[in-house]
Amino acid sequence: MSNSNWLLPEYIQDILPQDAARIERMRADVLELLRLSGYQLVAPPLLEYVESLLISGSSDMDLRTFKLVDQLSGRTLALRADTTPQVARIDAHLLNRQGVTRLCYAGSVLHTQPAGLMRTRELLQIGAELYGHSGLESDLEVQRLMLQALALLGIEGVHLDLGHVALFRALATRAEISPTLETELFNALQCKDESALRGLVQGLQPAIKNALLALPQLYGGIEVIKRARAVLPDYAEVTAALNQLEQVAMQLQPMAHDIGIDLAELRGYHYHSGMVFAAYHVDSHDAIALGGRYDDVGKSFGRARAATGFSMDLRQLHGLLPPQKQPMGILAPHLDDSALQAEIVRLRSLGHVVVVDLLGDQLLRNELNCDRELVKQSKNIWKVVALHS
Amino acid sequence: MSNSNWLLPEYIQDILPQDAARIERMRADVLELLRLSGYQLVAPPLLEYVESLLISGSSDMDLRTFKLVDQLSGRTLALRADTTPQVARIDAHLLNRQGVTRLCYAGSVLHTQPAGLMRTRELLQIGAELYGHSGLESDLEVQRLMLQALALLGIEGVHLDLGHVALFRALATRAEISPTLETELFNALQCKDESALRGLVQGLQPAIKNALLALPQLYGGIEVIKRARAVLPDYAEVTAALNQLEQVAMQLQPMAHDIGIDLAELRGYHYHSGMVFAAYHVDSHDAIALGGRYDDVGKSFGRARAATGFSMDLRQLHGLLPPQKQPMGILAPHLDDSALQAEIVRLRSLGHVVVVDLLGDQLLRNELNCDRELVKQSKNIWKVVALHS
Repeated sequence: MSNSNWLLPEYIQDILPQDAARIERMRADVLELLRLSGYQLVAPPLLEYVESLLISGSSDMDLRTFKLVDQLSGRTLALRADTTPQVARIDAHLLNRQGVTRLCYAGSVLHTQPAGLMRTRELLQIGAELYGHSGLESDLEVQRLMLQALALLGIEGVHLDLGHVALFRALATRAEISPTLETELFNALQCKDESALRGLVQGLQPAIKNALLALPQLYGGIEVIKRARAVLPDYAEVTAALNQLEQVAMQLQPMAHDIGIDLAELRGYHYHSGMVFAAYHVDSHDAIALGGRYDDVGKSFGRARAATGFSMDLRQLHGLLPPQKQPMGILAPHLDDSALQAEIVRLRSLGHVVVVDLLGDQLLRNELNCDRELVKQSKNIWKVVALHS
Repeated sequence: MSNSNWLLPEYIQDILPQDAARIERMRADVLELLRLSGYQLVAPPLLEYVESLLISGSSDMDLRTFKLVDQLSGRTLALRADTTPQVARIDAHLLNRQGVTRLCYAGSVLHTQPAGLMRTRELLQIGAELYGHSGLESDLEVQRLMLQALALLGIEGVHLDLGHVALFRALATRAEISPTLETELFNALQCKDESALRGLVQGLQPAIKNALLALPQLYGGIEVIKRARAVLPDYAEVTAALNQLEQVAMQLQPMAHDIGIDLAELRGYHYHSGMVFAAYHVDSHDAIALGGRYDDVGKSFGRARAATGFSMDLRQLHGLLPPQKQPMGILAPHLDDSALQAEIVRLRSLGHVVVVDLLGDQLLRNELNCDRELVKQSKNIWKVVALHS
């Protein structure tokens, strides 16, 4: 057996005590916020048949998904790379409610490749989904909840970026653009590749052509919406989308450090159907939380439902927080003394960490992360005093 | 795309709202018990190189471990089937402390095949490990902690089964038994196959032969230890092991419903080195929590350390608890009313679940799991009243 058994694969990490405890508290805090807001926890499995997980038809997601063989069925299983499709399956197929269903989740997702240079292949994804409501109220509720969660975790200076995939979809539909051209236009817009875009729009009717050429410039502050009203055609879908963006931006302004509009943002176009949003932070190149409306995702499980939700990676968010000193415990000698044992039980029931010093070795005490100790004052009386080192 | 996208692989489950919320509380409660007892949380990865996870040399574990290919390195990765070797790696290689190190963990582990007919392939393993102490005090601490955790979760009538792999090991070492014969004897003892055992012990010296033939009968209550003293040779290792079993049994008797001794129990023989223990419950065919001493497991990470610990599957334990009614929430109308919004914030801060009724559809209300509602009493005054359905 080689000596390098302790080596981990690239972009795979151990989370050590100080960080693990804090991430666990972050998880508990966000889940409690979601619970109090009426979101019910579900825990879909880490492994499913590959077809159930790759419902978005996104080849990017396919490449990022680990596959393995099920010895029991001989079929291909996949490790989830995203929890959202699983929760949509639970809503559509298992719960089968008719009205609004609010669900949340927290668990690992795995990627074959890291999403960015600073990222990991094992994320601790936490999120919330709201099904059965297509109005702006649910977009607002979900985005508010995301901003509340970030604030609760102590993430400051959040920039909220808003987009709307219905804009591009309306242009493509109105102009009866072929699926091939739609994909090419989509790729050019995603890369903000304006010269490719100029080539692709040749031959389209002037209103559509001008609108598509304008999209890459339509990003910035809330004033972008006004500019968009001037340059985009006044189709009902376009106006509705711009109105939605305006309302959300106005209502969420007090909760975010600032709000940006990006009308060429088509992240998850194959998946999303309405407003999309992402939170950014100055210390992170990638979005720190994101989501959007994806009204059709339940269809492949037999029931299309209006849906919107957000997700974030608690490990990534943890990296943005300032370091925190680990709380220290109380050292107790290892003695068969019933008064001591009773005091240890009492202190722990009050929330104190009490560490029994099994070795009683003065030189190794500092490893036990204690700043106080239990000392016998008199018969049956044990007191907590500062640890003299 | 087929209509059966919602089908899950065999022995793979979704955990739905009521169960998921309770399992999350169980997780939080056990982690808090461990934290207060000085066990620091670590979170090793779900995926590692296969050699790092299969350090026990157990072919059973090898067969139960999912393998997949790492696209980044071309090497074989494995999904952890047990967290213990990972925590041992963290102790041996990363923390590198000299004294006692107490660590705990909670996370999914995956098996290619279920361990029993009623079991799952995705377990939520939670456990604690104590490194750097080889005395009986740490065996006692870890077993006490396991029993405390089970009691905290509300599991009643726990039967604690004790064994000691040093007994068989001492007999094999003293008789200079070949590794091949040792393995055959081990298999015969594990299956309690007495006729195979009788064949294998031919040719061994009488004291060893009689001791090996006696082991399968040495199970029952604490009186087994007395019988063992009479029939097993009085080698120092044998006497020490029997003394340890006796002390632990006496000390833990008040915490368990009953205690059994099984001297042919060699679970994890390749892995364990001293006392082993398992908790059983009348409603479960398999052990509901188990552990033992495994002093050498750190060796393959460059540093052998005394070690003992326990683990259990929270999903399995959850199945043993009586059903619990889900706590119900308070329904709030969806209104742009600042007094209402303030009252919702206040109620949630007090720990109440408040569900906003986005659709306002009387017929769908019962899906929202509320038994009270917020009703306007007068200007700016909202009151919680029983929900009239």
